[in-house]
Amino acid sequence: MKLVVLDGYTLNPGDLSWDKLRGVAEVEIFDRTPPEEVIARAKDAPLVLTNKVKLPAATIEALPELRYIGVLATGYDVVDVTAAKQRGIPVSNVPGYGTASVAQHVLALLLEMTNGAGRHGRVVPTKWSQSVDFCFYEQPLTELEGKTLGILGYGAIGRAVAAVGRALGMEIMVHSRSPVV
Amino acid sequence: MKLVVLDGYTLNPGDLSWDKLRGVAEVEIFDRTPPEEVIARAKDAPLVLTNKVKLPAATIEALPELRYIGVLATGYDVVDVTAAKQRGIPVSNVPGYGTASVAQHVLALLLEMTNGAGRHGRVVPTKWSQSVDFCFYEQPLTELEGKTLGILGYGAIGRAVAAVGRALGMEIMVHSRSPVV
Repeated sequence: MKLVVLDGYTLNPGDLSWDKLRGVAEVEIFDRTPPEEVIARAKDAPLVLTNKVKLPAATIEALPELRYIGVLATGYDVVDVTAAKQRGIPVSNVPGYGTASVAQHVLALLLEMTNGAGRHGRVVPTKWSQSVDFCFYEQPLTELEGKTLGILGYGAIGRAVAAVGRALGMEIMVHSRSPVV
Repeated sequence: MKLVVLDGYTLNPGDLSWDKLRGVAEVEIFDRTPPEEVIARAKDAPLVLTNKVKLPAATIEALPELRYIGVLATGYDVVDVTAAKQRGIPVSNVPGYGTASVAQHVLALLLEMTNGAGRHGRVVPTKWSQSVDFCFYEQPLTELEGKTLGILGYGAIGRAVAAVGRALGMEIMVHSRSPVV
Protein backbone atom coordinates (compact mmCIF):
# COMPACT_ATOMS: atom_id res chain seq x y z
CA MET A 1 0.00 0.00 0.00
CA LYS A 2 1.37 3.37 -0.99
CA LEU A 3 2.04 6.12 1.56
CA VAL A 4 3.00 9.63 0.47
CA VAL A 5 4.58 12.20 2.80
CA LEU A 6 3.87 15.54 1.14
CA ASP A 7 6.21 17.73 3.22
CA GLY A 8 8.54 15.68 5.38
CA TYR A 9 11.37 18.18 5.74
CA THR A 10 10.37 20.10 8.87
CA LEU A 11 9.52 16.85 10.67
CA ASN A 12 12.71 15.15 9.54
CA PRO A 13 15.49 17.40 8.23
CA GLY A 14 17.80 14.41 8.40
CA ASP A 15 18.11 13.47 12.05
CA LEU A 16 15.19 11.01 12.20
CA SER A 17 14.50 7.71 10.46
CA TRP A 18 11.44 6.91 8.32
CA ASP A 19 12.28 3.18 8.44
CA LYS A 20 9.34 2.13 10.62
CA LEU A 21 6.95 3.53 8.00
CA ARG A 22 8.82 1.68 5.26
CA GLY A 23 8.10 -1.52 7.16
CA VAL A 24 4.33 -1.15 6.73
CA ALA A 25 3.91 0.65 3.40
CA GLU A 26 5.52 1.61 0.13
CA VAL A 27 6.72 5.05 1.19
CA GLU A 28 7.39 8.08 -1.00
CA ILE A 29 8.68 11.18 0.75
CA PHE A 30 8.78 14.72 -0.60
CA ASP A 31 10.57 17.47 1.35
CA ARG A 32 7.98 20.02 0.21
CA THR A 33 5.02 20.01 -2.18
CA PRO A 34 3.62 23.12 -3.90
CA PRO A 35 -0.23 23.28 -4.04
CA GLU A 36 -0.41 22.57 -7.76
CA GLU A 37 1.47 19.27 -7.38
CA VAL A 38 -0.49 17.76 -4.49
CA ILE A 39 -2.99 15.80 -6.59
CA ALA A 40 -0.38 14.42 -8.99
CA ARG A 41 1.83 13.24 -6.12
CA ALA A 42 -0.95 11.78 -3.95
CA LYS A 43 -3.25 10.30 -6.59
CA ASP A 44 -2.21 6.61 -6.21
CA ALA A 45 -1.78 6.74 -2.43
CA PRO A 46 -4.42 5.48 0.02
CA LEU A 47 -2.28 6.95 2.85
CA VAL A 48 -1.25 10.62 2.80
CA LEU A 49 0.78 12.42 5.48
CA THR A 50 0.98 16.21 5.59
CA ASN A 51 2.41 18.78 7.90
CA LYS A 52 1.56 22.17 6.41
CA VAL A 53 0.43 21.23 2.87
CA LYS A 54 -3.28 21.99 2.53
CA LEU A 55 -5.85 19.35 1.62
CA PRO A 56 -9.02 21.33 0.82
CA ALA A 57 -12.30 19.71 -0.31
CA ALA A 58 -11.42 19.98 -4.02
CA THR A 59 -8.16 18.09 -3.49
CA ILE A 60 -9.79 15.37 -1.39
CA GLU A 61 -12.49 14.94 -4.07
CA ALA A 62 -9.76 14.57 -6.72
CA LEU A 63 -8.13 11.68 -4.83
CA PRO A 64 -10.45 8.67 -5.16
CA GLU A 65 -7.89 6.22 -3.72
CA LEU A 66 -7.47 8.23 -0.50
CA ARG A 67 -8.38 6.30 2.67
CA TYR A 68 -6.39 8.02 5.44
CA ILE A 69 -4.91 11.46 6.15
CA GLY A 70 -2.28 11.83 8.86
CA VAL A 71 -1.39 15.36 9.99
CA LEU A 72 2.19 15.40 11.31
CA ALA A 73 1.40 18.30 13.64
CA THR A 74 -1.04 19.41 16.33
CA GLY A 75 -3.25 21.76 14.32
CA TYR A 76 -5.31 20.05 11.59
CA ASP A 77 -6.69 23.22 10.01
CA VAL A 78 -4.81 22.30 6.80
CA VAL A 79 -7.38 19.52 6.15
CA ASP A 80 -11.05 20.04 5.24
CA VAL A 81 -12.25 17.55 7.85
CA THR A 82 -15.89 17.87 6.76
CA ALA A 83 -15.00 16.78 3.21
CA ALA A 84 -12.89 13.94 4.61
CA LYS A 85 -15.71 12.81 6.88
CA GLN A 86 -18.18 12.72 3.97
CA ARG A 87 -15.83 10.29 2.24
CA GLY A 88 -15.35 8.28 5.48
CA ILE A 89 -11.63 9.18 5.53
CA PRO A 90 -10.20 9.31 9.07
CA VAL A 91 -7.91 12.25 9.86
CA SER A 92 -5.40 12.02 12.70
CA ASN A 93 -3.14 14.60 14.26
CA VAL A 94 -0.35 14.48 16.90
CA PRO A 95 -1.65 16.60 19.77
CA GLY A 96 0.89 15.64 22.43
CA TYR A 97 4.25 15.53 20.68
CA GLY A 98 5.53 18.85 21.95
CA THR A 99 4.45 19.05 25.61
CA ALA A 100 7.91 18.86 27.15
CA SER A 101 9.69 20.95 24.53
CA VAL A 102 7.05 23.70 24.47
CA ALA A 103 7.11 23.95 28.28
CA GLN A 104 10.91 24.10 28.09
CA HIS A 105 10.75 26.84 25.46
CA VAL A 106 8.28 28.91 27.52
CA LEU A 107 10.86 28.82 30.29
CA ALA A 108 13.68 29.67 27.89
CA LEU A 109 11.79 32.78 26.72
CA LEU A 110 10.99 33.80 30.31
CA LEU A 111 14.60 33.39 31.45
CA GLU A 112 15.88 35.26 28.40
CA MET A 113 13.91 38.25 29.71
CA THR A 114 14.80 37.88 33.40
CA ASN A 115 18.45 36.81 33.16
CA GLY A 116 19.70 37.63 29.65
CA ALA A 117 22.32 34.87 29.84
CA GLY A 118 23.48 35.20 26.24
CA ARG A 119 23.67 38.99 26.45
CA HIS A 120 25.82 38.86 29.59
CA GLY A 121 27.92 36.01 28.24
CA ARG A 122 28.91 38.05 25.20
CA VAL A 123 30.20 41.01 27.23
CA VAL A 124 31.99 39.17 30.05
CA PRO A 125 35.37 39.35 28.24
CA THR A 126 35.13 43.11 27.74
CA LYS A 127 32.87 44.60 30.39
CA TRP A 128 33.31 42.31 33.40
CA SER A 129 37.08 42.34 33.14
CA GLN A 130 36.96 46.15 33.25
CA SER A 131 34.30 46.42 35.97
CA VAL A 132 35.42 48.03 39.23
CA ASP A 133 33.04 45.71 41.10
CA PHE A 134 32.88 41.93 41.45
CA CYS A 135 29.26 42.05 40.26
CA PHE A 136 28.20 43.40 36.89
CA TYR A 137 24.95 43.32 34.95
CA GLU A 138 23.60 44.83 31.76
CA GLN A 139 19.95 44.86 32.84
CA PRO A 140 18.04 44.45 36.12
CA LEU A 141 17.93 40.74 36.97
CA THR A 142 14.47 39.60 38.04
CA GLU A 143 14.16 36.80 40.61
CA LEU A 144 11.15 34.61 39.84
CA GLU A 145 10.71 33.12 43.32
CA GLY A 146 7.55 34.51 44.93
CA LYS A 147 6.32 36.06 41.69
CA THR A 148 3.07 34.93 40.06
CA LEU A 149 3.00 32.96 36.80
CA GLY A 150 -0.24 33.37 34.84
CA ILE A 151 -1.17 30.48 32.55
CA LEU A 152 -3.97 30.64 29.96
CA GLY A 153 -5.20 27.11 29.23
CA TYR A 154 -4.44 24.25 31.54
CA GLY A 155 -3.96 21.20 29.36
CA ALA A 156 -0.81 19.11 29.19
CA ILE A 157 1.46 22.02 28.24
CA GLY A 158 -0.03 24.42 30.80
CA ARG A 159 0.43 21.84 33.54
CA ALA A 160 4.02 21.17 32.51
CA VAL A 161 4.77 24.91 32.62
CA ALA A 162 3.09 25.16 36.03
CA ALA A 163 5.28 22.34 37.39
CA VAL A 164 8.45 24.17 36.41
CA GLY A 165 7.11 27.45 37.79
CA ARG A 166 6.34 25.79 41.13
CA ALA A 167 9.86 24.33 41.24
CA LEU A 168 11.19 27.89 40.81
CA GLY A 169 9.11 28.99 43.81
CA MET A 170 6.46 30.84 41.78
CA GLU A 171 2.79 31.22 42.58
CA ILE A 172 0.63 29.76 39.80
CA MET A 173 -2.55 31.41 38.51
CA VAL A 174 -4.55 29.56 35.87
CA HIS A 175 -7.40 30.44 33.52
CA SER A 176 -9.08 27.61 31.66
CA ARG A 177 -12.30 27.23 29.69
CA SER A 178 -12.69 23.71 31.07
CA PRO A 179 -12.96 22.94 34.80
CA VAL A 180 -9.53 22.52 36.38
CA VAL A 181 -9.25 19.28 38.35
CA MET B 1 27.37 52.41 68.24
CA LYS B 2 29.12 52.97 64.95
CA LEU B 3 28.68 50.62 61.99
CA VAL B 4 30.81 50.97 58.84
CA VAL B 5 29.91 49.36 55.52
CA LEU B 6 33.19 49.25 53.61
CA ASP B 7 31.80 48.37 50.15
CA GLY B 8 28.05 48.65 50.01
CA TYR B 9 27.65 49.28 46.29
CA THR B 10 27.30 45.76 44.90
CA LEU B 11 24.82 44.84 47.64
CA ASN B 12 22.84 48.03 47.21
CA PRO B 13 23.40 49.96 43.98
CA GLY B 14 20.35 52.07 44.87
CA ASP B 15 17.39 49.71 44.83
CA LEU B 16 17.53 48.63 48.51
CA SER B 17 17.17 50.53 51.77
CA TRP B 18 19.75 50.65 54.59
CA ASP B 19 17.14 52.12 56.98
CA LYS B 20 16.82 49.06 59.22
CA LEU B 21 20.53 49.28 59.99
CA ARG B 22 20.20 52.98 60.73
CA GLY B 23 17.63 52.04 63.38
CA VAL B 24 20.17 50.10 65.44
CA ALA B 25 23.49 51.88 64.82
CA GLU B 26 25.17 55.02 63.61
CA VAL B 27 25.78 53.91 60.04
CA GLU B 28 28.46 55.08 57.63
CA ILE B 29 28.37 53.58 54.15
CA PHE B 30 31.13 53.63 51.53
CA ASP B 31 30.44 52.37 48.01
CA ARG B 32 33.99 51.01 47.77
CA THR B 33 37.11 51.12 49.97
CA PRO B 34 40.68 50.71 48.66
CA PRO B 35 42.94 48.57 50.89
CA GLU B 36 45.00 51.53 52.14
CA GLU B 37 41.88 53.26 53.52
CA VAL B 38 40.32 50.37 55.42
CA ILE B 39 41.92 51.10 58.80
CA ALA B 40 41.21 54.85 58.68
CA ARG B 41 37.57 54.26 57.80
CA ALA B 42 36.92 51.44 60.28
CA LYS B 43 39.02 52.57 63.23
CA ASP B 44 36.16 53.95 65.42
CA ALA B 45 33.63 51.28 64.46
CA PRO B 46 32.83 48.25 66.64
CA LEU B 47 30.71 46.91 63.77
CA VAL B 48 32.20 46.45 60.28
CA LEU B 49 30.42 45.06 57.24
CA THR B 50 32.34 43.99 54.15
CA ASN B 51 31.53 42.29 50.90
CA LYS B 52 34.82 41.93 49.03
CA VAL B 53 37.13 44.26 51.00
CA LYS B 54 39.80 42.16 52.69
CA LEU B 55 40.29 42.14 56.46
CA PRO B 56 43.64 40.35 56.97
CA ALA B 57 45.24 39.80 60.39
CA ALA B 58 47.24 43.07 60.23
CA THR B 59 44.06 45.08 59.64
CA ILE B 60 42.14 43.35 62.43
CA GLU B 61 45.06 43.96 64.82
CA ALA B 62 45.03 47.66 63.89
CA LEU B 63 41.33 48.01 64.83
CA PRO B 64 41.15 47.81 68.66
CA GLU B 65 37.48 48.89 68.76
CA LEU B 66 36.35 46.08 66.44
CA ARG B 67 33.79 43.71 68.00
CA TYR B 68 31.91 42.24 65.02
CA ILE B 69 32.57 41.55 61.32
CA GLY B 70 29.66 40.88 59.01
CA VAL B 71 30.41 39.51 55.53
CA LEU B 72 27.66 40.56 53.13
CA ALA B 73 28.23 37.48 50.98
CA THR B 74 28.48 33.70 51.16
CA GLY B 75 32.27 33.24 50.98
CA TYR B 76 34.15 34.66 54.00
CA ASP B 77 37.66 34.14 52.63
CA VAL B 78 38.14 37.92 52.71
CA VAL B 79 38.40 37.76 56.53
CA ASP B 80 41.26 36.18 58.49
CA VAL B 81 38.91 34.25 60.75
CA THR B 82 41.76 32.90 62.88
CA ALA B 83 42.89 36.41 63.77
CA ALA B 84 39.27 37.39 64.46
CA LYS B 85 38.78 34.37 66.71
CA GLN B 86 41.90 35.18 68.72
CA ARG B 87 40.37 38.58 69.47
CA GLY B 88 36.95 36.99 70.21
CA ILE B 89 35.38 38.80 67.26
CA PRO B 90 32.46 36.91 65.73
CA VAL B 91 32.33 36.76 61.93
CA SER B 92 29.06 36.11 60.14
CA ASN B 93 28.25 35.48 56.50
CA VAL B 94 25.01 35.10 54.49
CA PRO B 95 25.10 31.56 53.14
CA GLY B 96 21.50 31.27 51.95
CA TYR B 97 20.70 34.54 50.25
CA GLY B 98 21.02 33.35 46.67
CA THR B 99 19.46 29.87 46.58
CA ALA B 100 16.51 30.69 44.35
CA SER B 101 18.33 33.11 42.07
CA VAL B 102 21.36 30.85 41.58
CA ALA B 103 19.11 27.88 40.72
CA GLN B 104 17.24 30.14 38.30
CA HIS B 105 20.50 31.28 36.72
CA VAL B 106 21.74 27.69 36.30
CA LEU B 107 18.57 27.03 34.33
CA ALA B 108 19.00 30.25 32.33
CA LEU B 109 22.51 29.16 31.28
CA LEU B 110 21.33 25.65 30.42
CA LEU B 111 18.40 26.94 28.32
CA GLU B 112 20.65 29.47 26.59
CA MET B 113 22.61 26.47 25.30
CA THR B 114 19.64 24.23 24.43
CA ASN B 115 17.18 26.80 23.04
CA GLY B 116 19.14 29.97 22.20
CA ALA B 117 16.02 32.11 22.69
CA GLY B 118 17.78 35.45 22.30
CA ARG B 119 19.72 34.32 19.23
CA HIS B 120 16.54 33.15 17.48
CA GLY B 121 14.58 36.20 18.60
CA ARG B 122 17.07 38.50 16.92
CA VAL B 123 16.83 36.83 13.49
CA VAL B 124 13.06 36.18 13.35
CA PRO B 125 12.42 39.43 11.41
CA THR B 126 14.99 38.59 8.74
CA LYS B 127 15.45 34.82 8.57
CA TRP B 128 12.07 33.41 9.57
CA SER B 129 10.19 35.71 7.24
CA GLN B 130 12.37 34.43 4.38
CA SER B 131 12.31 30.77 5.39
CA VAL B 132 10.66 28.37 2.94
CA ASP B 133 9.48 26.27 5.90
CA PHE B 134 7.17 26.99 8.83
CA CYS B 135 9.94 25.88 11.20
CA PHE B 136 13.35 27.50 11.35
CA TYR B 137 16.26 27.21 13.71
CA GLU B 138 19.81 28.46 13.92
CA GLN B 139 21.15 25.57 15.97
CA PRO B 140 19.96 22.07 16.94
CA LEU B 141 17.37 22.43 19.73
CA THR B 142 17.95 19.98 22.57
CA GLU B 143 14.95 18.63 24.48
CA LEU B 144 15.82 18.16 28.15
CA GLU B 145 13.08 15.66 29.01
CA GLY B 146 14.58 12.23 29.62
CA LYS B 147 18.15 13.58 29.72
CA THR B 148 20.28 13.32 32.86
CA LEU B 149 21.20 16.36 34.95
CA GLY B 150 24.42 15.91 36.94
CA ILE B 151 24.71 17.99 40.11
CA LEU B 152 27.93 18.33 42.12
CA GLY B 153 27.06 19.24 45.71
CA TYR B 154 23.59 18.72 47.07
CA GLY B 155 22.96 21.57 49.48
CA ALA B 156 20.15 24.10 49.20
CA ILE B 157 21.16 25.26 45.70
CA GLY B 158 21.75 21.75 44.35
CA ARG B 159 18.34 20.66 45.63
CA ALA B 160 16.63 23.68 44.10
CA VAL B 161 18.27 22.92 40.73
CA ALA B 162 17.22 19.27 41.03
CA ALA B 163 13.58 20.29 41.63
CA VAL B 164 13.50 22.32 38.42
CA GLY B 165 15.24 19.54 36.49
CA ARG B 166 12.65 17.02 37.69
CA ALA B 167 9.84 19.35 36.66
CA LEU B 168 11.40 19.40 33.16
CA GLY B 169 11.31 15.59 33.12
CA MET B 170 15.05 15.12 33.64
CA GLU B 171 16.77 12.29 35.48
CA ILE B 172 18.84 13.63 38.40
CA MET B 173 22.31 12.35 39.28
CA VAL B 174 23.98 13.80 42.35
CA HIS B 175 27.48 13.71 43.81
CA SER B 176 27.95 15.01 47.32
CA ARG B 177 30.72 14.81 49.92
CA SER B 178 28.09 14.54 52.66
CA PRO B 179 25.50 11.76 52.83
CA VAL B 180 22.39 12.64 50.81
CA VAL B 181 19.21 12.26 52.84
